[in-house]
Amino acid sequence: MKAAERRQNLKEALITAAERTIARQGLHGLRARDLADKVGCAVGAIYNVVADLDELILLVNSRTIAALERALTKAAEADARLVGPEGAIERLERLSMVYTDFAATNTLRWRALYEHRLPEDYPLPAWYSEELMRVFSYVEGPLRMLQPDAPPERVELIARSLFSAVHGIVSLGLEEKLYSLPLTSLREQVIFVVSAVGRGLMLSAEKTVGGRIDR
Amino acid sequence: MKAAERRQNLKEALITAAERTIARQGLHGLRARDLADKVGCAVGAIYNVVADLDELILLVNSRTIAALERALTKAAEADARLVGPEGAIERLERLSMVYTDFAATNTLRWRALYEHRLPEDYPLPAWYSEELMRVFSYVEGPLRMLQPDAPPERVELIARSLFSAVHGIVSLGLEEKLYSLPLTSLREQVIFVVSAVGRGLMLSAEKTVGGRIDR
Repeated sequence: MKAAERRQNLKEALITAAERTIARQGLHGLRARDLADKVGCAVGAIYNVVADLDELILLVNSRTIAALERALTKAAEADARLVGPEGAIERLERLSMVYTDFAATNTLRWRALYEHRLPEDYPLPAWYSEELMRVFSYVEGPLRMLQPDAPPERVELIARSLFSAVHGIVSLGLEEKLYSLPLTSLREQVIFVVSAVGRGLMLSAEKTVGGRIDR
Repeated sequence: MKAAERRQNLKEALITAAERTIARQGLHGLRARDLADKVGCAVGAIYNVVADLDELILLVNSRTIAALERALTKAAEADARLVGPEGAIERLERLSMVYTDFAATNTLRWRALYEHRLPEDYPLPAWYSEELMRVFSYVEGPLRMLQPDAPPERVELIARSLFSAVHGIVSLGLEEKLYSLPLTSLREQVIFVVSAVGRGLMLSAEKTVGGRIDR
């Protein structure tokens, strides 16, 4: 086995070990010492394959985003049959359910996406920002169906707002101590907000088409 | 000075010192050693007046909630003139702006409200839950104006959904690394979602009054 291959294998093993720790104990359970024990390397060897634990966490988060994306792609493909404004609203509702269920099922891995705060002087790597932006893009398709005449920047902004609104409900709803909300209520709350926003967009698009000035 | 009074003074001094640290460095900057130095007591003396740092953080958070409540009360009083469904939507929009501006102005103190996670075996004190619930109650007034026939549990649930949706937008919007969103855009996004939800509620109440079955 060549050195480059060994390095790559060690890196993958470390990501997997960190992923398991995060899935079981959350971000705060992560220690370089434990990871080294788990993959059977020296603590110092970790820093031959990643710059620091922050990079390792970003690599774990990248896997979490990829898993979320697979679920979103599957839903988007199944929803291709839904057309028209009502269909677009249903698509948005279904995508929001994918997100809600993903968070409820993979709570600690999902929470690590948001809890992990990089040091001040540590810029967010471009590859990571691109992955995050790809998640928003799933929401943009149905939004364009609802607001066909809106400029792309507006669609992007609405996609972020809607994503953030859903994220807020899921995020506070899964904090058992604050709410203790069963998953069915959480899903209902998300559907309620997504559907209201969808209907609001549909109405404002109709108004624009009718030549009236939208509020 | 009596012992009880000395204890109370030390407790207040510790809360103030912790509040300042959180406002400047966030929750992660908090150390018992530093707090003791700041108020001029022994580290052990801290635990004569609070059970642990978790309790101290809850007391700081309680002050933050009180400051938010003062801002919400002021807005609610000024908005008493707004009547009817359109007035109710405007009240919701204005309350959401109070929340957005409070979070943008007191970001680290506000973030501590959500970041502070109590240990598994540490129940959320009843007084703290009550304070949190009081914040939701500001949203319930205008919602009752929009859905006068809805049962109180439904109004409560909608209040939480709307609060959480606004919180999500503000929370992700203030994470500079993810978005880098100027405050004006953030405010626009919040208004957009609150107004859409408000309009959705207004329409569904009209439908119910008209005798049609609401979706």
